[in-house]
Amino acid sequence: MTATLGEIAAEINAELHGDPDCKITNVASLPRAGAGQLSFCANKHYYSYLSQTEAAAVVLRADDAARCKTSRLVAADPYLAYAKAARMLNPQANFQPGVHPTAVIEPDARIAPGCFIGAQVYIGAQARIGACSWIGPGCVIEARARLGSHCRLLANVTVLQDVSIGRRALLHPGVVIGSDGYGMANDGGRWLKIPQLGSVRVGDDVELGANTTIDRGTLDDTVIEAGVKIDNQVHIGHNAHVGEHTAIAGAAALAGSVKLGKRCMIGGACAIAGHVELADDVTITGMSGVAGSIGQAGVYSGGIPVTENRIWRKNIARFRHLDELVRKFARLAGNVRQ
Amino acid sequence: MTATLGEIAAEINAELHGDPDCKITNVASLPRAGAGQLSFCANKHYYSYLSQTEAAAVVLRADDAARCKTSRLVAADPYLAYAKAARMLNPQANFQPGVHPTAVIEPDARIAPGCFIGAQVYIGAQARIGACSWIGPGCVIEARARLGSHCRLLANVTVLQDVSIGRRALLHPGVVIGSDGYGMANDGGRWLKIPQLGSVRVGDDVELGANTTIDRGTLDDTVIEAGVKIDNQVHIGHNAHVGEHTAIAGAAALAGSVKLGKRCMIGGACAIAGHVELADDVTITGMSGVAGSIGQAGVYSGGIPVTENRIWRKNIARFRHLDELVRKFARLAGNVRQ
Amino acid sequence: MTATLGEIAAEINAELHGDPDCKITNVASLPRAGAGQLSFCANKHYYSYLSQTEAAAVVLRADDAARCKTSRLVAADPYLAYAKAARMLNPQANFQPGVHPTAVIEPDARIAPGCFIGAQVYIGAQARIGACSWIGPGCVIEARARLGSHCRLLANVTVLQDVSIGRRALLHPGVVIGSDGYGMANDGGRWLKIPQLGSVRVGDDVELGANTTIDRGTLDDTVIEAGVKIDNQVHIGHNAHVGEHTAIAGAAALAGSVKLGKRCMIGGACAIAGHVELADDVTITGMSGVAGSIGQAGVYSGGIPVTENRIWRKNIARFRHLDELVRKFARLAGNVRQ
Repeated sequence: MTATLGEIAAEINAELHGDPDCKITNVASLPRAGAGQLSFCANKHYYSYLSQTEAAAVVLRADDAARCKTSRLVAADPYLAYAKAARMLNPQANFQPGVHPTAVIEPDARIAPGCFIGAQVYIGAQARIGACSWIGPGCVIEARARLGSHCRLLANVTVLQDVSIGRRALLHPGVVIGSDGYGMANDGGRWLKIPQLGSVRVGDDVELGANTTIDRGTLDDTVIEAGVKIDNQVHIGHNAHVGEHTAIAGAAALAGSVKLGKRCMIGGACAIAGHVELADDVTITGMSGVAGSIGQAGVYSGGIPVTENRIWRKNIARFRHLDELVRKFARLAGNVRQ
Repeated sequence: MTATLGEIAAEINAELHGDPDCKITNVASLPRAGAGQLSFCANKHYYSYLSQTEAAAVVLRADDAARCKTSRLVAADPYLAYAKAARMLNPQANFQPGVHPTAVIEPDARIAPGCFIGAQVYIGAQARIGACSWIGPGCVIEARARLGSHCRLLANVTVLQDVSIGRRALLHPGVVIGSDGYGMANDGGRWLKIPQLGSVRVGDDVELGANTTIDRGTLDDTVIEAGVKIDNQVHIGHNAHVGEHTAIAGAAALAGSVKLGKRCMIGGACAIAGHVELADDVTITGMSGVAGSIGQAGVYSGGIPVTENRIWRKNIARFRHLDELVRKFARLAGNVRQ
Repeated sequence: MTATLGEIAAEINAELHGDPDCKITNVASLPRAGAGQLSFCANKHYYSYLSQTEAAAVVLRADDAARCKTSRLVAADPYLAYAKAARMLNPQANFQPGVHPTAVIEPDARIAPGCFIGAQVYIGAQARIGACSWIGPGCVIEARARLGSHCRLLANVTVLQDVSIGRRALLHPGVVIGSDGYGMANDGGRWLKIPQLGSVRVGDDVELGANTTIDRGTLDDTVIEAGVKIDNQVHIGHNAHVGEHTAIAGAAALAGSVKLGKRCMIGGACAIAGHVELADDVTITGMSGVAGSIGQAGVYSGGIPVTENRIWRKNIARFRHLDELVRKFARLAGNVRQ
């Protein structure tokens, strides 16, 4: 889509320094942007590109405006303003509704008007697909699952029986929702599977990254509230409850019955132990393990980042005796003070 | 299924305090259970729900019986007893055998009687599917793979050539068995792929969670023994050997040639380095890295759980000099003692 | 395939001690190899098998030759030499080109000669598949994606729109290439998705393990250079750039905009934070978190490997006060010196 700088400034609520009639065809990164392209600078790491960019215009903070020789769109939060401009210039593509002849739809499934059902899709008995949804090739939607309107399941997504998904879900390839929770009782050394009778309820405006999996609850449901954004390869155990607008980055793992508050941010490759509860607005930095509940908003971290292997080995060897060191230190300090 | 409390008590070997003719239709969690529903209490965290539950009956320990005003089923291990009751009330659903017309089955594959083969399934040449197995939509079973009887492959599962799987396997969506091991030799800075000529042998009663992957062996086979239960998104490298009744929680990763004993428990998001061997009955708590073999049963842990980022940063900075600190301490202690 | 020891010695550039006319039918592991089979010993852990092997011949180092009673192929790098022999004896199987009748190929897709397109495959508009490629059952290749010649997509692989892949790619089941990057701006507590307008470019000779996912770039492309080998369940975020011949082991996670040099080795279950850059020839050992850039080749490690839980708990408790300990120590040392 094409828009003028003036139209964009109005849409993203930015102050325009430049020609309002200049036509913008799309967005591009600072080093690559050229004529007709809009870019942005939200981070001092890009200052060197900013001064040399050939973009038609740049979204940036007032403080950075002097670094830029081209037209400027000044915004308090340039990343957000850029996001709005990029969305304006790249609206969701329309599609032709219809059902591919190779799709298999059980007779009592209900597909609302305006949907596209792609090649090799399977939709089970009594499943319901909301209006204007797009179900890509190879997706499997099992019996009695319900999707709201305007959902997009890109390809090879699996939604199991009875799962309920809100409106505008965006599910990337390989997503699995409603697999059994990992629940079993030990019976004299053997594992006895416990029937997983709950389901999964996913709110509106949820995005799930490629190959992310969400287990169904054992008795009650696993719940993903509205506005939650989950990256690729995330594991969500049974009966987890993820609060509104929480973001979970790639390869994180939530064990069973974890409860995350609203607006939490879970870094990549984090793991959260079973039954842990996090308050609203808790941020866990990447690759941290959370073993106990956190009752207060804030930023929390764990783990030991890399150093040269040679140094790390020595420190690790010392760590194994850290408790001993502290005891020895206390004794020595006692002796010295006497 | 409906059963009386008396029938359930007999099935789960519990002592009934209540009306043996009371009809139970299903199980439910303590806070949600109502008339006709059975619940359980295996954990003191649920005492507050226990005293107020409206369940028809509760499975619990003798010590907790007084906390409960409703009918009781007293058992030494209430979680196990509950599991048995839940299984009794929720038997595996029967299905109508048959082959969906969109399934593709190579002419020389053998499907035993009583199987259901779903939509868009592919079954390769000389593959064999055991009696009464259920192969859900989108599954791919390649040439010469063999499945025992009563297996359930839910949807979009991939079993590659020559893989052998025992009876009663339960494979969740996105499972891949028999992908190539990660084996290559370095040839002057380039990687030369080593043909992966082994296969995967999976015993009876194995469950694999959604998107779990098991690589085939390089020369010999990767082996998953009977009764092993693996959660979602677990990576099992080539030539790994997982002993009977071992449980591996979500997002764990086993490198090549790892050997786990029987009845081990591997916590979520753990990683086990190549060629490591664990004895029988080893438990690794969640998000731990195992770099060397463990010869003795017991509980092992690693990693640094989260604290406030502010504190963690300081401690991490000190950790980088831990070896130095220990050396300084030793010198100081020597001086003091002199 | 069958070859003589003489032919093999010539192919792998090894010195033969034994009968050059001895026929070899395949490779096998030292403990299992028998008549007509070739094995190798590259590691002292296998010495006990070496002395007793019934292999027809063994590839090994000159130093180990005396430990072996059978025919020997002496090579400087026996693992590499074995790899070459295994490849010689197990050439890529030929296949009959053709398109399965259940495959769906949009009319304006272009399939070069010599390809096999399997059951239930979907190939989108204007996609191009290079000569002699093998697309297994259930794969989805979306609009305008381009694959080079001699690619193999085993089964249930998803390649999204506009992705470009070089020659001889080997993609295992469940791989997803081109899913949206995890990019969003915070708009007053809600997440606003940023259109992901870049693509993914994958070079020649790349192998991706089962269920590995590679996100498309936000504006510019995510790039995987030639010769990169990635194991199972690896997450590659948007705009990552992986240099030539780098190897990434299972369950590792690269956040957005990570840049890896050439010939790096990333251990299993590692995580690399956003925007981190690694120089060429950096090795990160397994289960390490990399929080900052590394400018120099070398081996780097992080994390705390497991110990007995009882000891670990004590040390962890002390770690929480490590900064305090260092401060106390400094004071004490000051006092003592005075």
